[in-house]
Amino acid sequence: MTGVAGRPTIPAARFANRITRAARATTEGGFDALLVGVGPDLRYLTGYEALPLERLTVLVIPSAAAAPKLVAPRLELAAARAGVRPDVAIATWEETEDPYALVAALVGEAARPTRPARRLGVSDRLWASHLLRLQAALPGVTFESATAVLRDLRMVKDAEEIELLRLAAHAADRVIARIAAGPLVGRTEADVAREVRERLLAEGHELAEFSIVASGPNSASPHHEASERVIRAGEPIVLDIGGTLGGYGSDITRMVWVTGGDPAKGPDPEYLRLYGVVQHAQGEATRTVRPGVACERIDAVARGIIESDGYGPNFIHRTGHGIGLEGHEEPYLAAGNAQLLREGAAFSVEPGIYLEGRYGARIEDIVVCGPNGPIVLNQAPRDLMVVRG
Amino acid sequence: MTGVAGRPTIPAARFANRITRAARATTEGGFDALLVGVGPDLRYLTGYEALPLERLTVLVIPSAAAAPKLVAPRLELAAARAGVRPDVAIATWEETEDPYALVAALVGEAARPTRPARRLGVSDRLWASHLLRLQAALPGVTFESATAVLRDLRMVKDAEEIELLRLAAHAADRVIARIAAGPLVGRTEADVAREVRERLLAEGHELAEFSIVASGPNSASPHHEASERVIRAGEPIVLDIGGTLGGYGSDITRMVWVTGGDPAKGPDPEYLRLYGVVQHAQGEATRTVRPGVACERIDAVARGIIESDGYGPNFIHRTGHGIGLEGHEEPYLAAGNAQLLREGAAFSVEPGIYLEGRYGARIEDIVVCGPNGPIVLNQAPRDLMVVRG
Repeated sequence: MTGVAGRPTIPAARFANRITRAARATTEGGFDALLVGVGPDLRYLTGYEALPLERLTVLVIPSAAAAPKLVAPRLELAAARAGVRPDVAIATWEETEDPYALVAALVGEAARPTRPARRLGVSDRLWASHLLRLQAALPGVTFESATAVLRDLRMVKDAEEIELLRLAAHAADRVIARIAAGPLVGRTEADVAREVRERLLAEGHELAEFSIVASGPNSASPHHEASERVIRAGEPIVLDIGGTLGGYGSDITRMVWVTGGDPAKGPDPEYLRLYGVVQHAQGEATRTVRPGVACERIDAVARGIIESDGYGPNFIHRTGHGIGLEGHEEPYLAAGNAQLLREGAAFSVEPGIYLEGRYGARIEDIVVCGPNGPIVLNQAPRDLMVVRG
Repeated sequence: MTGVAGRPTIPAARFANRITRAARATTEGGFDALLVGVGPDLRYLTGYEALPLERLTVLVIPSAAAAPKLVAPRLELAAARAGVRPDVAIATWEETEDPYALVAALVGEAARPTRPARRLGVSDRLWASHLLRLQAALPGVTFESATAVLRDLRMVKDAEEIELLRLAAHAADRVIARIAAGPLVGRTEADVAREVRERLLAEGHELAEFSIVASGPNSASPHHEASERVIRAGEPIVLDIGGTLGGYGSDITRMVWVTGGDPAKGPDPEYLRLYGVVQHAQGEATRTVRPGVACERIDAVARGIIESDGYGPNFIHRTGHGIGLEGHEEPYLAAGNAQLLREGAAFSVEPGIYLEGRYGARIEDIVVCGPNGPIVLNQAPRDLMVVRG
C-alpha cells in the first residue's frame, strides 16, 4: 500500500509476548482476569484494530494458567481472525446470545481452580454500556481499570513503536514547515486547518485527528478549534497538529507570527518575552528527562521557570502526556504524578502561556526517554517563526 | 464552508427542548440524574462535538428542578462555550482537581431536597475509566444505562435529522453508482475501498467510516474488510459503505457482479436464486414498516422468507439497526426486541445470505418509519448490478 514502505511492522511473536507479560502482570496485580475491549489496549496486545461497537468484543486474559480467549460476535469472526496476530482462540456468540454471560462463564472457569473471581481489570475505553452489563453478569466482583496492569507494558515503547513515533513526528514536522511557508494572512483558520489535515494524510498519516489553528486572541485558548476567523497580519498563530501513522500518534505545536510583509507588524516586546519564557521552560523540561526522574519533576521544572517569570497563573495545563497508540496516555507529566520515567517512555513536553483576550504561545515536542537523557523526535525548529504569511 | 450549503441546521431552542424533555424523562424513569459524557448523547442534547478524552467532560442533568450543568476541564472551556448551543452553565475543573468529586457534589446537591441520590443514568459511550471513578466517588449509588431514558427521545427523529439522513443517503447512493460504473476487475478490494472513501468525502461526508468491499468468497463474510485480494471477472462484490454527513450516518449495501465483458462470466443460477430471495426478504421487511409494528416483527418477516427458501442458517445477523448520530443505535430490528416502531424512527433494513467459502449477498437501505408506512431514503436501484467492471 502507498506510503507504507519503510515502516516497521510488529511481528506476531511480539504480540504473543505482550499477552504473556500481561497475564503475568494480571497475576502479580492480584487480578483474576483482564477484560480488554476494542481499543488501544486490544490493538497493543493482539494487533486487532476494530471499531468499537454495541456488539461486545473482548479479550479475556486469565491470571492463571488458562489461555486467553477472544470473545467476538460471530459476524466479526473473519475480521477477528484476520486482525488478531498472535495465536489466540476465538469464542463467538450468535446474534441472539448473551455475550456478557459468556464472558462471565469464561472468567468463572479461569478462576475456578482456587475460588470465584473477585477482582477484574477492564480496559479504560470499554464503553459504559458494556461495563454495566458485565457488572450485572458478575455480581460481587470488583472492577478496576486494567491500566493498573497494562501501564508498565504500554508505557515502555519497543524499537518498532519508537520508529513509528519518529516517522509520525517527522511527517508532522514537514507539515508545519509547509504551513508556515504560507499563505496564511486573509485565510480562515478553518481553511488552514483543512490544509493541515490534507497534508498530514498526504504525508502518510491514516488519520488527521486534530488541527488546532488559533490566531490572534484565539491563541490564548489552549484547545481552540479552528474557526471561521480570518487570519490578519500582526498576530501569532498556534499550530497544534497531529494524527496517527501506522497507529502511532504525532503531536506537535509550533508558533508562527504573521507580518503580512509589513516590518511594523512584527511581534511586540511582550510577546517576544513571553515566547522566550515558554521556549526556555520547554527546553529545560526536556533536558530534565532521563530514567528515574519523576513525571511531576518535569512539570515542576517547566512550571518553575514560567512562575519565576511571572506567568504562573497563565500556564493552565499540565506539561505533557504520554503518546503511542493513544494520543493521550500514560505517563502524564503533571503535578502529583510521582511515577518514575522509564527508558522507552514517550510523551509530549508542551508548556504554554496564555493571556486571555490577547494571545498565547505553546511549544510542543514528542520526546522519548533515552538511556541517558531525552531523545527529541520532532526536528522542526523551535524558534518563533516570524513570516510574511 | 464547502458542501454545507443547503443543509438544515438544528436551532438552539431545539437543543434546550431536548434537555427539558430528557430531564422530565429522568424524573419519570426514577433516576436522580443523568450523566452524559462526550459522545452522541451529548451532541444530541447540546450540539457539542468533542473528542472523548481522559479529561472528564460530562453534562449533569438532575431529575429535579435544578438546572443542568456541564462539567468540563478549564482547558476546554472556550471549546465548550463555542460548542454548546443551548444556555447551559459550565463548571470547570483545574488540571490538579478531581472532576469526579465535583460531579458527585453536583449530584448530591441535585438530590438533596429529598434524599441522597440512589440511581444515576450514564451515557452508553462513557469510557470505563470514567465510569469506574464515578462509581468510586458515589458509593452506594446504582448506575444504569442512560439509554433507558434517552431512547425514546433519540429514536424519534425530527424533520432536520431526517433531512440530514436523506442527504447522507443520497450522497452514498451516488457513490455506489459511480463505483459500480467501474473499473473494478484487476483492482484490489483495498484500492476500491480507498476510492469509496474519497468519493464519500467528495460528496460532503465529513467522515467515511467504513467501506466494505468484499469480492468473490469474501462476500460470504458479512463484515469483511477490504483486503489486498484482486477482483476477478465472474464474481460478486458486496459494497457496504457509509460515514457521516452533518453528523448523521449513511449506510447502504448494494451487490455488483463483474463479468469483465465476458457473457459466460455472468452470475450462476444459484446466485441469482439466492439474490432473489434476499431482494424479496428486503422488500417485504421494508413494506412491513409502520408505527406500532414490533421491531422483532420486521426481522421475522425477512427471516421467514429466507428460511422458507432454505437459507435460514445462512442469514446470521439481525435484520437492521437504528441510525442517526450513531451508525448503530436503537431501535435494533432483531429477534426478541418487542419494542414498537414509532413514527420518525430511522434504521437499516439489510437481510443477507452467506454461503461460506463461496459467496453471499446483502441489500441494505436506510428506512424511516413514516405515518403510514416506510419512507425509504436510499434511491439506488436494488437489482443485482451485472456489469463489465
